[in-house]
Amino acid sequence: MNKDLLVEIRGIEPLDGEAMKEAAAYQNKLLKPPGSLGVLESLAIQMAGITGKLHNRIDRKVHFLFGSDHGVYDEGVSASPQHFTRVLMELYAGGGGCGINVLCGKAGVDLKPVDMGVKGLLTPHPSIDSRFRLMPEGTKNFAIEPAMSEDTAMKAVCAGMELAAEAKRDGYQIIGTGEVGMGNTTPAAACIMAALGMDDPTEAVGRGGGLTDEAFEVKKRVIVNALKKHKPDPSDPLDILSKVGGLDIAGMTGIFLGAARHRLPVVIDGVISIAAALLASVVAPLSKQYMIPSHFSQEPGYALAMHSLGFSPLMTLEMRLGEGTGCPIAMQIIDDALAIMNSMNTFDGVSLESEYRKKLKP
Amino acid sequence: MNKDLLVEIRGIEPLDGEAMKEAAAYQNKLLKPPGSLGVLESLAIQMAGITGKLHNRIDRKVHFLFGSDHGVYDEGVSASPQHFTRVLMELYAGGGGCGINVLCGKAGVDLKPVDMGVKGLLTPHPSIDSRFRLMPEGTKNFAIEPAMSEDTAMKAVCAGMELAAEAKRDGYQIIGTGEVGMGNTTPAAACIMAALGMDDPTEAVGRGGGLTDEAFEVKKRVIVNALKKHKPDPSDPLDILSKVGGLDIAGMTGIFLGAARHRLPVVIDGVISIAAALLASVVAPLSKQYMIPSHFSQEPGYALAMHSLGFSPLMTLEMRLGEGTGCPIAMQIIDDALAIMNSMNTFDGVSLESEYRKKLKP
Repeated sequence: MNKDLLVEIRGIEPLDGEAMKEAAAYQNKLLKPPGSLGVLESLAIQMAGITGKLHNRIDRKVHFLFGSDHGVYDEGVSASPQHFTRVLMELYAGGGGCGINVLCGKAGVDLKPVDMGVKGLLTPHPSIDSRFRLMPEGTKNFAIEPAMSEDTAMKAVCAGMELAAEAKRDGYQIIGTGEVGMGNTTPAAACIMAALGMDDPTEAVGRGGGLTDEAFEVKKRVIVNALKKHKPDPSDPLDILSKVGGLDIAGMTGIFLGAARHRLPVVIDGVISIAAALLASVVAPLSKQYMIPSHFSQEPGYALAMHSLGFSPLMTLEMRLGEGTGCPIAMQIIDDALAIMNSMNTFDGVSLESEYRKKLKP
Repeated sequence: MNKDLLVEIRGIEPLDGEAMKEAAAYQNKLLKPPGSLGVLESLAIQMAGITGKLHNRIDRKVHFLFGSDHGVYDEGVSASPQHFTRVLMELYAGGGGCGINVLCGKAGVDLKPVDMGVKGLLTPHPSIDSRFRLMPEGTKNFAIEPAMSEDTAMKAVCAGMELAAEAKRDGYQIIGTGEVGMGNTTPAAACIMAALGMDDPTEAVGRGGGLTDEAFEVKKRVIVNALKKHKPDPSDPLDILSKVGGLDIAGMTGIFLGAARHRLPVVIDGVISIAAALLASVVAPLSKQYMIPSHFSQEPGYALAMHSLGFSPLMTLEMRLGEGTGCPIAMQIIDDALAIMNSMNTFDGVSLESEYRKKLKP
């Protein structure tokens, strides 16, 4: 691992325990049975641990959407034409009414598409970040050879960390993580299986955007064979990423590490996003403390990674679109949690008699 | 059952099948793999069935919060002082920073507290609806006698239906359902057990706002004994309500029926709300089509009623506060679903090439 990256990762600090203790105590003073707001309470306490402050507001939200293509697409593991990756990236950038455009628009989230290696010439667009276009034809087919070099995997992770650092400098207070890349549930499942040391694909591999029975069998076989062939080291995320990963997953791994490094909460979307979260947690276990799961993705690998991370998602919406569509929805619930912390009254504050009643009974 | 009520209930119509078919077909044209937005798709389709229109917006939202006291409180089934019901109602009305005030405020939902029988003199307040204060001392203790007369149960249900009719006339497009009443998880569990013909409390009864082990055993015994003593008829919700119900549950049962009668979507909150939804579905199975579950309540009876209704909630937030706190949070997700339907582009609309790209390539 390169030195700068190591220094950055060693700079990740745990949440502020004092602030969390204070926040938990404050939650117990609010006008409700202790614990009765469940996850809304724990989200507000986590946020206090992240910022060190009892009361927090999130006014500026950003969502990074990593576009990249995958050599393993050639094995027939996706139901969609590969150039959809490029077309969709251009639509996101042009505000073209994709799911993530609509949901980010509604939740007040700035959408930043990042081209990490979309195959073919992506029409230049001012809102697409092309600085980290590491492999212009996408990754190699990992059924045959490693998806990328270890150096490229490292650069992709560093790109994500740099984006998180920039988000912090730009005043963003929360980060969402999404992706587009035809076939990318294949590297995601492979990364999850590799990190968890699994060899049976039954519980880890799903149908992605929609596969025939036959293509589904191919997908499982491709993953199992690649893991056998390349033998990625479960304890070495860069080895996993370079052998069976993707540029999107690598970039998102960097986002999770960078968010933790710069003390920003970061929202997990579906199976690709949580594969990256899992790898980030292997690199730096403390990074988990900055993560917030959003929805329970329908892709089976999601549940495996989720259990391994010890998370339970906020929503069960049976979604499997990708793009990070769960993130802007979850950010509204995180805002709700902060509103409770900021605006709910305490038992002390009302002495169990309303202000209104006090006024009537002098 | 009284004649007017029967006429109203017979007036409940199913969702508009044609509109739903059109909505489902339209969802499949949107820029995503079919079905990949899961519950966001089904919510938009359900809404089309409710209004008969493909595209819908919800600009005006109302949340009814039913306050009432429960005679069974005297058995020691609640950890909170009984006058909290009154104090909390006054706080809701005065905008006093309770959970539901904060969450309705954030989601743009008008909060309407309704006094169905809060014990003791509730300070009059212009925003508390006191027209349906049916039992000024709350219900009777159903450990000893029926909670209320069948006539009162009927009046409480009719009150809820009237409120739903008024909401429609006032231009509201969605209704939330909440309650306050110390001890009210006891009648809720009793109603669920009665409607499902259960006699074992193990899976149905929880600790509500928080009970000691001893009080929890008392609560279970009180419910089991009351069901043995009164033998409510599982097929007769008015019999259940009068024997082991509450005025809040009865009022909400009316809201669910009235919402269906007037073609308004209505959001279920926690265990008390879903007990009412279950009873409404026994009275009029079609009413289920207008209901939307919000969160998976921690109270065990919730899961039983949910499975019986065939619902699966949008969120798993480990909440058990009551007040209907899950409703305003869920309404934001419902808005997201409608935004997807209204603003997402179709495959036809872009011909797989972005508008932006078309402009560049004449």
